[in-house]
Amino acid sequence: MLGIFDSGIGGLTVVRELLQRHPDASFIYLGDTARAPYGNKSPETIARYAVEDARWLVSHGADTLVVACNSMSAHAMQALRDALPGTRLFEVITPAVAVAAKVSKGRVGVIGTRATVSSHIYEDGLTRIRPELRVVSASCPLFVPLAEEGMHHARETKMIARRYLTPIQRAQVDTLILGCTHYPLLTDVIQQRVGRNTRIVDSPSAVLDVIAAEDASQLAAQSRPVQRYCFTEENARTREIAENWLGCAVTCERADVSPLTKP
Amino acid sequence: MLGIFDSGIGGLTVVRELLQRHPDASFIYLGDTARAPYGNKSPETIARYAVEDARWLVSHGADTLVVACNSMSAHAMQALRDALPGTRLFEVITPAVAVAAKVSKGRVGVIGTRATVSSHIYEDGLTRIRPELRVVSASCPLFVPLAEEGMHHARETKMIARRYLTPIQRAQVDTLILGCTHYPLLTDVIQQRVGRNTRIVDSPSAVLDVIAAEDASQLAAQSRPVQRYCFTEENARTREIAENWLGCAVTCERADVSPLTKP
Repeated sequence: MLGIFDSGIGGLTVVRELLQRHPDASFIYLGDTARAPYGNKSPETIARYAVEDARWLVSHGADTLVVACNSMSAHAMQALRDALPGTRLFEVITPAVAVAAKVSKGRVGVIGTRATVSSHIYEDGLTRIRPELRVVSASCPLFVPLAEEGMHHARETKMIARRYLTPIQRAQVDTLILGCTHYPLLTDVIQQRVGRNTRIVDSPSAVLDVIAAEDASQLAAQSRPVQRYCFTEENARTREIAENWLGCAVTCERADVSPLTKP
Repeated sequence: MLGIFDSGIGGLTVVRELLQRHPDASFIYLGDTARAPYGNKSPETIARYAVEDARWLVSHGADTLVVACNSMSAHAMQALRDALPGTRLFEVITPAVAVAAKVSKGRVGVIGTRATVSSHIYEDGLTRIRPELRVVSASCPLFVPLAEEGMHHARETKMIARRYLTPIQRAQVDTLILGCTHYPLLTDVIQQRVGRNTRIVDSPSAVLDVIAAEDASQLAAQSRPVQRYCFTEENARTREIAENWLGCAVTCERADVSPLTKP
C-alpha cells in the first residue's frame, strides 16, 4: 500500500491527483502537522523527522512511500534509504526535473518556497541532465497561505502571482516547474500569468507517472480501498482544508509518530 | 532582566515597542522557531513548550517573563505559574482587554488568528469586566504571512484588510483590539480601514504599560544593556525579518530549550 507523507497538508495534492486518476486506490496519508513546517528546520532535523514519519507509515501497512514534500525530498532521502532498506521510496523532485528536462525547448522556470529556491536543487538537477538549459527561479512565499485559505481564484492571489511571476514571464520560459506541493492548487492563476504556451510541470502528476511506470499495481483499484488521513496534530481546520482541496468528506485520524509529539 | 518569548518571531513587536520607549533597556528574547507555530497545537503541548521556553529564559538570567504570544497567554499561564513559582509573569491578553474595557464606549472589535478568535478569550475577558459590551470578532489568517513578508503597505494587504475588516467596520466598533502580536506591524493599513475614530489597542503597548506601572525598574536604561535575540532554529530569514521589523542590526543566537529540539 502507498504511504504518502508530508510535513503538513501540502502532500494532499498528491492524494488529490491519485484520487482523480484512481478513485479506488488504497493509501495512507501522514501529515506531521504537529511539527510543520519543515522548510525552516535544519537538514539533520528534517532527516530525523522524515525517518520517524516513514517508520510510522511502514508500521501501519505501507510498503511504498511517496515523500510528498520538497524539504524531505531535498534533505532526507539518504537517511530514509539507510533507515528503511527494504522499502520502495519515491520523492517529488527528480520526477518533475526529469519531465521538465525532457520537454523544455531551453528555458525552464522554477517556483517554490524560499527554502527550496535558495537550495538550487531543481536548477542543479536540470543542468545535470541538460547543461545548456537556462533556469530562472522565483520564490513565492505567500502561495502556501493563499492556497490554504482557499483563495485559489481571488483577485489578491492574481496580483501576488503577478508580483512573483513577472521575472519568470520576462525570461520567456517554455516550461515551469511548480516546486512546492501546494502550488498545483493555484495552477489556473499561475497558467494565466505565464501564458498558455508555457508548459506547467507539477510534482503530483510527475511522481504518479513514475510510480505508474515502475509499479502500476500500487495504483490499482481495490474492491475495498483503504484511504486513511492521519495527522500528528489533528484539528477541525486540517479537515476543513483537506475537504476543500479534495472535494470530498475526509475523516482525520491522530497519529503519534514519536515520543516527541506526545505531551 | 526581562525575558520576552514567543513561539516564533511575532513577539518581536514587544521588543520593538520596548526599544522605541527605552532604547537602552536590557532583555533576552526567545523565539521557539523550531516548533512554531503553536496556534495549531493542543493546549497541553502549548503548555509544555511554554514551560520549557520559560525555564530556558530563567536559566539564562531572566527574572521577569513576558509571554508575548496569544496561544501561550491563553493556554499556558497556569502551567507557567506552577512550574516557576518565584518568577514574575506577564501575558499579552489581559492588559489589552483591560485597556479596551476601560476606553470603549460600548462596541469592541477583536481581530486575531483563527485559533485566537475561535477561543473567544478576548470576548470572554471583555464581557467579564463589562457585561454590556458588544464584541465583534474576525480572524485575519493572512495578516501573519503578509507582515512576515514585509508587505505592510502593499495594495494586496489593503485589499485583504478590506476583506477581513468589513464586518468589524459595519459593526461600528469604537475600539479594536489587535489580538495577535504580528498585527501592530499592519497598524497603518488596519487604522485606514476601520477609520480614525476607532481606537486601536495593541498588546505590546498594553503589556509594557502594565510592566511600567508594576515594576518600572525592568524598563530602566542600563549603561551596558544586554539585548539578546535567541531562536531554537536560527537562520538568515529570521534575522532578515527581525532587522526589517526592528530597523536595526540583529545578531541571532541559537537556543536549545529542550532535548526535543536537539537533532
